Amino acid sequence: MRTVYWETNSVKLIDQRKLPWEYKIESYSDYRDLAQAIADMVVRGAPAIGATAGFGMALAARQFASPTVVALQQELQRAADVLLSSRPTAVNLKWAVTQQLELALSPAWSDVTSLQQALLVNAQRIADEDVSINQRMGAHGATLVNDGDTIIHHCNTGSLATVDYGTALGVIRAAHEQGKKIHVLVDETRPRLQGARLTAWELDRIGVSYDLIADNAAGHFMRTGQVNLVLVGADRIAANGDVANKIGTYKLAV
Amino acid sequence: MRTVYWETNSVKLIDQRKLPWEYKIESYSDYRDLAQAIADMVVRGAPAIGATAGFGMALAARQFASPTVVALQQELQRAADVLLSSRPTAVNLKWAVTQQLELALSPAWSDVTSLQQALLVNAQRIADEDVSINQRMGAHGATLVNDGDTIIHHCNTGSLATVDYGTALGVIRAAHEQGKKIHVLVDETRPRLQGARLTAWELDRIGVSYDLIADNAAGHFMRTGQVNLVLVGADRIAANGDVANKIGTYKLAV
Repeated sequence: MRTVYWETNSVKLIDQRKLPWEYKIESYSDYRDLAQAIADMVVRGAPAIGATAGFGMALAARQFASPTVVALQQELQRAADVLLSSRPTAVNLKWAVTQQLELALSPAWSDVTSLQQALLVNAQRIADEDVSINQRMGAHGATLVNDGDTIIHHCNTGSLATVDYGTALGVIRAAHEQGKKIHVLVDETRPRLQGARLTAWELDRIGVSYDLIADNAAGHFMRTGQVNLVLVGADRIAANGDVANKIGTYKLAV
Repeated sequence: MRTVYWETNSVKLIDQRKLPWEYKIESYSDYRDLAQAIADMVVRGAPAIGATAGFGMALAARQFASPTVVALQQELQRAADVLLSSRPTAVNLKWAVTQQLELALSPAWSDVTSLQQALLVNAQRIADEDVSINQRMGAHGATLVNDGDTIIHHCNTGSLATVDYGTALGVIRAAHEQGKKIHVLVDETRPRLQGARLTAWELDRIGVSYDLIADNAAGHFMRTGQVNLVLVGADRIAANGDVANKIGTYKLAV
């Protein structure tokens, strides 16, 4: 299951606002609609947003039937601004758009078609690389998980937050695939309930045992010694190891 | 505003499940319906439940047109069992019902009417005493509140949780009545949202400045030094000062 992918000249997204009640794929053939979808949280999770924006630049390049490379480059500059403003806090978005724009603005392009193709190839590479990074992260992280562990997980860091597989939830997935018996306490994660709506749905799909808990209950389970591990995602990680993440992470850390 | 009171031979309750959208008073003339109302959380908050159950025993005594004191005492024994089973965790419920039953089972009663009246008088006394205790608690607690303080409050401990005035929220109310400028960060209090639905509604009524926050955000406000005081209720307090209270209190304490 990929959260974001390219198919028949359009970008496809799982509409995450409708989960867990409805599994619906939306299709975008205009990059401005895709930017609006990011703003409206059809897709969320920094890596997923980054990949979406990468495809968004490829989409913009196809949309404009510009006769010259220079004209297309100007259009792409505008498209980059629109995409960048859709979710100013997502660092992956800026990273992916900037990378695509730099590629597009290279003086080396001599024809429009090559530039269009290169942006799509690079968008696909960004998406595939994210999956590969996740799988390696999962494998490394799973070595910290013991058979029989109970794990608290905050927010959603699974396939839905990334292109596929997940980061913190990828660790849980890798441990599960290795045959370790684990149980996950899923923080519902107020205010937007990503845990209750998305993480629980994902764990259900991959067959991992879990209980959904109110965020408030996490302290109780820790105090009574029922928790072996806490796994959370990170919006950013500083060089000293400090983590910036979803509201509630600080309380878990304390 | 009283959360529970006696009027024209029936017990009146504010239906707290309908707040903040609708302010509706329910009327009960059968103690079994009143027990069901406790079970259904029409009324909640230990002191409010205690007062309700006290009135429930008075109601039961009126309902049965028993010809003898002994027959009425037998009926009241059954009524006590029904009321006690409506919310097994509420210690005030057991306390009020037991107190009323002991009063009823006294061998001193010679006529049915006197027994009926005594139970109503005692129920009224339990309710009034609760208000008086709250007001004194508020006055004592308010000495801990400084002008300009920002206070985190968890769950609902106001008029709605008691007969009137409130316990922890009574402290906030007393400080406000003394003219201290305070601001309250109201934990929404998952899973049942008593903070979002009831505490915010009460603060609005009495004109105290507040912001509703996700429970998860409390740690952030503490870490950034924006909180002077945390006020929570208590289901029980041990002799050593330990407090048993609503889920999430432990995380606030840490």
